[in-house]
Amino acid sequence: MSTSTTNARDLASLVRLARAARAGQRGLGTAAADVRTAVLGRLSALLGERQEEILAANQLDLDAARESQLSAPLLGRLALSPSKLATLREGVDIVAAQADPIGRVVRATELDDGLILRQVSSPIGVLLIIFESRPDAVVQIGSLALRSGNAVILKGGSEAGHSNRVLVACLRDALVAEGLPADAVCGIEGRDAVRELLELDELINLVIPRGSSALVRSIQASTRIPVLGHAEGICHLVLDASADVEVATRLAVDGKCGYPTACNAVETLLVHHEFLPQLATVGQALIDRNVELRADERSRACLPAAAPASDEDWATEYGDLVLAIRTVDTLDQAIAHIHQYGSAHTEALVTQDSESRARFLRGVDAASVFVNASTRFADGYRYGLGAEVGISTSRIHARGPVGVEGLLTTRWLLEGEGQIADDYGPGKKAFKHHVLPTGGPED
Amino acid sequence: MSTSTTNARDLASLVRLARAARAGQRGLGTAAADVRTAVLGRLSALLGERQEEILAANQLDLDAARESQLSAPLLGRLALSPSKLATLREGVDIVAAQADPIGRVVRATELDDGLILRQVSSPIGVLLIIFESRPDAVVQIGSLALRSGNAVILKGGSEAGHSNRVLVACLRDALVAEGLPADAVCGIEGRDAVRELLELDELINLVIPRGSSALVRSIQASTRIPVLGHAEGICHLVLDASADVEVATRLAVDGKCGYPTACNAVETLLVHHEFLPQLATVGQALIDRNVELRADERSRACLPAAAPASDEDWATEYGDLVLAIRTVDTLDQAIAHIHQYGSAHTEALVTQDSESRARFLRGVDAASVFVNASTRFADGYRYGLGAEVGISTSRIHARGPVGVEGLLTTRWLLEGEGQIADDYGPGKKAFKHHVLPTGGPED
Repeated sequence: MSTSTTNARDLASLVRLARAARAGQRGLGTAAADVRTAVLGRLSALLGERQEEILAANQLDLDAARESQLSAPLLGRLALSPSKLATLREGVDIVAAQADPIGRVVRATELDDGLILRQVSSPIGVLLIIFESRPDAVVQIGSLALRSGNAVILKGGSEAGHSNRVLVACLRDALVAEGLPADAVCGIEGRDAVRELLELDELINLVIPRGSSALVRSIQASTRIPVLGHAEGICHLVLDASADVEVATRLAVDGKCGYPTACNAVETLLVHHEFLPQLATVGQALIDRNVELRADERSRACLPAAAPASDEDWATEYGDLVLAIRTVDTLDQAIAHIHQYGSAHTEALVTQDSESRARFLRGVDAASVFVNASTRFADGYRYGLGAEVGISTSRIHARGPVGVEGLLTTRWLLEGEGQIADDYGPGKKAFKHHVLPTGGPED
Repeated sequence: MSTSTTNARDLASLVRLARAARAGQRGLGTAAADVRTAVLGRLSALLGERQEEILAANQLDLDAARESQLSAPLLGRLALSPSKLATLREGVDIVAAQADPIGRVVRATELDDGLILRQVSSPIGVLLIIFESRPDAVVQIGSLALRSGNAVILKGGSEAGHSNRVLVACLRDALVAEGLPADAVCGIEGRDAVRELLELDELINLVIPRGSSALVRSIQASTRIPVLGHAEGICHLVLDASADVEVATRLAVDGKCGYPTACNAVETLLVHHEFLPQLATVGQALIDRNVELRADERSRACLPAAAPASDEDWATEYGDLVLAIRTVDTLDQAIAHIHQYGSAHTEALVTQDSESRARFLRGVDAASVFVNASTRFADGYRYGLGAEVGISTSRIHARGPVGVEGLLTTRWLLEGEGQIADDYGPGKKAFKHHVLPTGGPED
């Protein structure tokens, strides 16, 4: 098995590792599409062949985690099983079956006779991915990186060290089996190593931290490398004056109770004052699902069981079965509340009024803006993006649920017959700038 | 005239300014397209009406600059004139005539019956633009920001203070005249103010520094806000074994002499050893244009006038009539040199061989990769992008020449009939993920 994971703490060996990853990326990114597909097939097979080894490594992590009294939910995320591995293999097979995303022509222009410009999709380069307990992430992110021709340096949580090491080795061995450099996938351990790597902005092109927003912000503050961050989700469900009470109830329950720790869960209900007479129905459904309600004075009049809310509640991501409720006089007031307290993640309106619908869709500045649909739909799989890199609250590059496209950039390819720029301009030749059809592969 | 530019140094007033810009952006970004078009028309008119005032302010800057012995090229960039103002107005008119870029549907998917997802182009939010002596930038960048619905905070060079202030006032007055908030455009002065604003990552969404790569790197190191940076251009021209000597000569002269301080100028010539017998022709044409040549030993044998090159030359952006020349044994060696010393800006190959062409286009990792065309074509205007925000050497969001699309992000709009996520999944309803046609406006 290929040596998989570096515990190196010294800068020199981390620079070597990042250089090796970059060199590995050149090989991976310029390989033919079917070679990358073959690597993914090989990975899927290896995950089957090495199941016992993987589960044994995972058992070591689980034993240590139980000893250090890791909480039950964290243990659950750490644990692998034959069925989880089968699901992971299925995911790899799906990514392998996808069309190769490299070399797609996204724009083509005839600048002049025999001078053709094409903008084509290309790998970004070397990605540094930082994630927490789930060892599944090694395979999920690793397979997306292989598909998109990027090298990855993977830093998982220390509690999953044994599991991550054997999974990283599977990825590296799959590369080698198809004649590609193993170092296109590297594993590292330890926070010190991350700190050092964040200095290497000439070797690493994008950092993707998957974890708490405190983690994301601390990384953003300590590197020149661009960060594709997934920060908190303070999502709102707005019940308009004309909201259908049945839809409002359904969306509130799904948004709050479907998966309360998810970033697309609802944290605050904003209620138009004309809807207040029907609020008790919504409130009761939530109480029946053990949701603790914290409401402003006007809505508490309809919800005697609710505790009083403070301004702090509007700015809190509970990640739990707790819901804040506030009354608004107008839809614009709800939008202003969203812009003041929201995290621009996912915002939803329940309405039967077409003017409210249009104003909300146009006026709300968030990655996802919904009308009469649950905030829980904000998800790469549900959006039909295939595998999900994460949900980005960044505004540039990729926003909202991010699929494999978030791991791509473009290059501009210009082919001529010896033309020079000095021949064009006022009083000289003019550009044609004739737009050409796109969509096909690069060549 | 609307108060235009803040000299505030204290954090509280800068926070107020950034908040006002954000509130201004909400108004600008959600206004109807024809209102933004009218603002641009108004701006063009104001630049005409206030020509005397603008030129008088510019004269104050020029007087001070001459007193402080600013160099002639910098004086040239600082100076405005009736003809420069006419060109600026023409640029504003062109941007005004462009289709509104907001609300374009870039992806649409029917997730299920009556559950329609659309990804639509949207303004990014508040941009902080830092630029140097040319006051023209206020109008050029300001008009792109208005067209794309973004607020801008503009920080120009102190040597252009009077000019910038009156131009910022024109932008603000144009907004007010169409009923939009003036604060969607703000001017600030002083480096301290920039330092403070770079802390405000919750209010400012993108920083675009236009200047030296030292400036860009220092900004990247001191903020959590994403930076759209334009760093140095160390561009190469590769002369393949099969290069046509006439094309090679033309591209070398255009690439080096067309505008030597431009970031898309050629800094190093990489010469396949089989081309060496013809190198003297290329070298003589460059010497005739007063280019100083610095060459490795093998190429100096053909170019007796060249000085010896050192490793430092390969990593230098001369920005001047100086050219480094190195011999390579293979095309792959040239590509390896480019990846080691280049800045991934623009790389060009002269060849008549289709295999070399394909290998170069596929194998070179740079924003722009050219075959048989001058590096000087790497430019937003020449690419047909309309006005240019800059040339990005970032790999994410926007790479290479950046037009108005670099100032846009997307939002995901989902419209349903009360659907909830809990109804979908294994053993429940399946998503349709039916791709819908795109291209039209949002509604």
